[in-house]
Amino acid sequence: MKGISRKIYLELDEPTEEDNRSGQMRIIEGLRAEGIEARMSLASLKELYPLCETEGWKVTVSLAWEGSGWMVTRLEAGDTSAKHYGLATDLGSTTVVTRLVDCCTGQVLAESGHYNRQIAYGTDILTRIFYCKDSPEALEKMRSAAVDTILENLKEIEETVGIRPEECIQMTVSGNTTMVHFLLGLDAFCVFAAPYAVWADQPGFLKGIEIGIPVNGYVFCYPGKSNYLGGDITSGLAAVKIYKEEELCIFFDIGTNGELVIGNREFLLCGAGAAGPALEGGVVRTGMRAVKGAVDRVRIENGEIHSHVLGEGKAEGICGSGIVDLLAELFKNGWIDLRGKLEPEKSPLIERQGGSLAVEYAPGLFFFQEDIDEFLRTKAAAYTMVEYMLMESGVSLDEILKVYVSGAFGKHVSKESAVTIGMYPDIDRTRLISPGNTSLDGAVEVLLDKSILDEIDEILDKMVYIQFGAVEDFLQMMTAALALPHTDLEKFPSVTEMLARRRQMDMEEGD
Amino acid sequence: MKGISRKIYLELDEPTEEDNRSGQMRIIEGLRAEGIEARMSLASLKELYPLCETEGWKVTVSLAWEGSGWMVTRLEAGDTSAKHYGLATDLGSTTVVTRLVDCCTGQVLAESGHYNRQIAYGTDILTRIFYCKDSPEALEKMRSAAVDTILENLKEIEETVGIRPEECIQMTVSGNTTMVHFLLGLDAFCVFAAPYAVWADQPGFLKGIEIGIPVNGYVFCYPGKSNYLGGDITSGLAAVKIYKEEELCIFFDIGTNGELVIGNREFLLCGAGAAGPALEGGVVRTGMRAVKGAVDRVRIENGEIHSHVLGEGKAEGICGSGIVDLLAELFKNGWIDLRGKLEPEKSPLIERQGGSLAVEYAPGLFFFQEDIDEFLRTKAAAYTMVEYMLMESGVSLDEILKVYVSGAFGKHVSKESAVTIGMYPDIDRTRLISPGNTSLDGAVEVLLDKSILDEIDEILDKMVYIQFGAVEDFLQMMTAALALPHTDLEKFPSVTEMLARRRQMDMEEGD
Repeated sequence: MKGISRKIYLELDEPTEEDNRSGQMRIIEGLRAEGIEARMSLASLKELYPLCETEGWKVTVSLAWEGSGWMVTRLEAGDTSAKHYGLATDLGSTTVVTRLVDCCTGQVLAESGHYNRQIAYGTDILTRIFYCKDSPEALEKMRSAAVDTILENLKEIEETVGIRPEECIQMTVSGNTTMVHFLLGLDAFCVFAAPYAVWADQPGFLKGIEIGIPVNGYVFCYPGKSNYLGGDITSGLAAVKIYKEEELCIFFDIGTNGELVIGNREFLLCGAGAAGPALEGGVVRTGMRAVKGAVDRVRIENGEIHSHVLGEGKAEGICGSGIVDLLAELFKNGWIDLRGKLEPEKSPLIERQGGSLAVEYAPGLFFFQEDIDEFLRTKAAAYTMVEYMLMESGVSLDEILKVYVSGAFGKHVSKESAVTIGMYPDIDRTRLISPGNTSLDGAVEVLLDKSILDEIDEILDKMVYIQFGAVEDFLQMMTAALALPHTDLEKFPSVTEMLARRRQMDMEEGD
Repeated sequence: MKGISRKIYLELDEPTEEDNRSGQMRIIEGLRAEGIEARMSLASLKELYPLCETEGWKVTVSLAWEGSGWMVTRLEAGDTSAKHYGLATDLGSTTVVTRLVDCCTGQVLAESGHYNRQIAYGTDILTRIFYCKDSPEALEKMRSAAVDTILENLKEIEETVGIRPEECIQMTVSGNTTMVHFLLGLDAFCVFAAPYAVWADQPGFLKGIEIGIPVNGYVFCYPGKSNYLGGDITSGLAAVKIYKEEELCIFFDIGTNGELVIGNREFLLCGAGAAGPALEGGVVRTGMRAVKGAVDRVRIENGEIHSHVLGEGKAEGICGSGIVDLLAELFKNGWIDLRGKLEPEKSPLIERQGGSLAVEYAPGLFFFQEDIDEFLRTKAAAYTMVEYMLMESGVSLDEILKVYVSGAFGKHVSKESAVTIGMYPDIDRTRLISPGNTSLDGAVEVLLDKSILDEIDEILDKMVYIQFGAVEDFLQMMTAALALPHTDLEKFPSVTEMLARRRQMDMEEGD
């Protein structure tokens, strides 16, 4: 593995009067013989004695890439080169997930995720930004909340596999621009305020100790392209590598915000917009995150709604993938029309609840007309981002080889249902790929492959950012996309065909 | 000035929606336009806001060379590029001297020196080394004593000229190998124990904060060549630049130890040995350092000893330059013979004091026969180093263009007296140069001229170390040099001639 850290076992000659080079030079020249030019940190110089003497000059050197060269960060007795670990963290505004990686094998040895402790200062990013604005004390609280969340992950990892963070050389971090600003203790008001020039977008390698992360080397924060296209997207691109494809691809990270990249090795056209918290179960009255108790799958059969509950217990609410299934099933069965309006005559499960129509998708749990309307805006926004970007880049959907939908939503949602409601474009389902947490995957990638650093520069160079909010067409296109699956049915041939087939079957059954 | 720090005033464009590059990129690209590739430290990233906004993006950037590239370490409001300071410290085992340098003009604005606080743990280096050996606690005391002495200098400098260390970017340090080991918290037993392989000889640039020095950038420690040829010698060479001369030169740093370098741009042959603390007033019974109350000049006229006292008050003892003068005068006037034996019949000032002969060189102050014998060993060692190195390099004294005798002793001693007693070689006095504290001068040099860093590598490459202790000839040669000026008078033609002239005059007066 040629990552951003190395562990090299050296068997050095013991000093003699004829060869009394310093301990430092022995290490540096020993590494040079292995093809590595390195400097030694003060901490590692302090470890030379008595270690080298007691170990007969058989030591293992930890090397950390620091942005422009290799730094020796640690010396250990004997050959510990097989114990070579690194950490990768996806610093999300809601969840912070850290992986412990065996840098010899590339294997993920442990993973730990916790809610971002910054939630105490606001569930959404904007609240947090306002909380910190022009208050160094509040900013410091926000910074340490991020660090503490990571430390919580590290503690759990240590408890699980017995490997301390001090045994890890590097940590890579992918996070959006706000998250990285907070981690570094930087004011993040710039992210959401015109002219959207942020403070730091390429922090690079910073000493772990400076950030408060007890790794032996550095913390590398993925660089971002702009305020809305942060290191999580750069990292996601590094994971799916559409910038290496000859054919055109789409990378779509849908969460609270949606970030979209269309391109290949020639170009990367990017956009970002508020996809809506609906996807994470927000806004919707009984919405919840995809945790125990959430309905994540819905099927209507013989007039009954079958809801699958995460954890197999009692349903407590519905998460994004459940909503998409529910809407698709309601639509396929004609319980909602193409505008998403509930048709109470179609099922006794549709009833009035406090002045609004609602469908009871699980015992005592209702999905309201307002919830549907809200979600339709979300799905229309998501679809329109893709459509708009295709238009902007002069590319037709047929030319797209793959559509990556990253993130937890993409991973859990049924592709079929997402196409049915017109959220995903209607293409061959094998071309719709759900790679999961690409932000975290990209963080692991760079840990294990230093050449990704060059690729990141390439990615940043190629990325061209288009602001959706700035274009009038966007809203018109989105309005057309509010229908199920779309005002223009020609855009959804497989859905149209499926609906026609069902109508045919219904008619035949009706006979 | 093209030193190891820079201050660059930037007038950057304010961000607009069309150009919303990050603050970080504005600084980096602003510097790039000035021809400087730099990274930004976390501290400087944190200074971007609100500074850039309040100052209309007119800021001054402090840049510190960190060994492989430039690091932005600080941002300031407006144009402060004229306030560009650096610090240079000569970390001596006895005295620690720091200069504050105006890096725009190269001018030394202030200088402060204090006794090394490590003296509390031993006046000589060996005692200190044993004190620390295998005791991390004692080593930490030793380390912080060095740092505290430097901080004392910085405090005095601040009190004198009102410039705080935080306003300085870099500090350069020249010190011998032991001193640098202690400063970094490294065990220094290696310096004096076979096989004389030290731990760190090229520490390079370390963050000020890591060392405990509150500069804004790094602390650069001059690299050493070997245990006895430390950074103070490399620094001294960088100051006198004999490695650039076409003709052969000698660099001789005499203090408690003597380090000698002979060479030119082709080669640098080096040796080191215990010159003896006698030169700094040690060993000799009434010896003292060259401070107030010390006799620093002696003249015998009409049978009377005229002693000049530093500070013009009452004599309290005698320092190195006073001793050399005293011995030269005693010898010229025949009060001691060529073996240095006091001849009591020559002056009533020579009398028995507690069983030993002694000469009263100032009211109530005596220089004893044992003191003379001790000092003759010192001067013989010093002379023999030069003679031995000339022999080793196959060079005759006539081929030597200049002899630099650096250090406080060299600066204060009378060249004429030093030649008379056979301590300095008998060459044209204009070729005997006393450049003063070259260790400190070299530290200032690199602060102001980054290209010295390359020259240092060149110096280290060229240096070839010869251990005096290892050669048998050395002791024989030293024995011959114990006489005044030398057993072989042909080596001292000007002294021989002077003595002959005096004898002639005495005879004429006697007529």
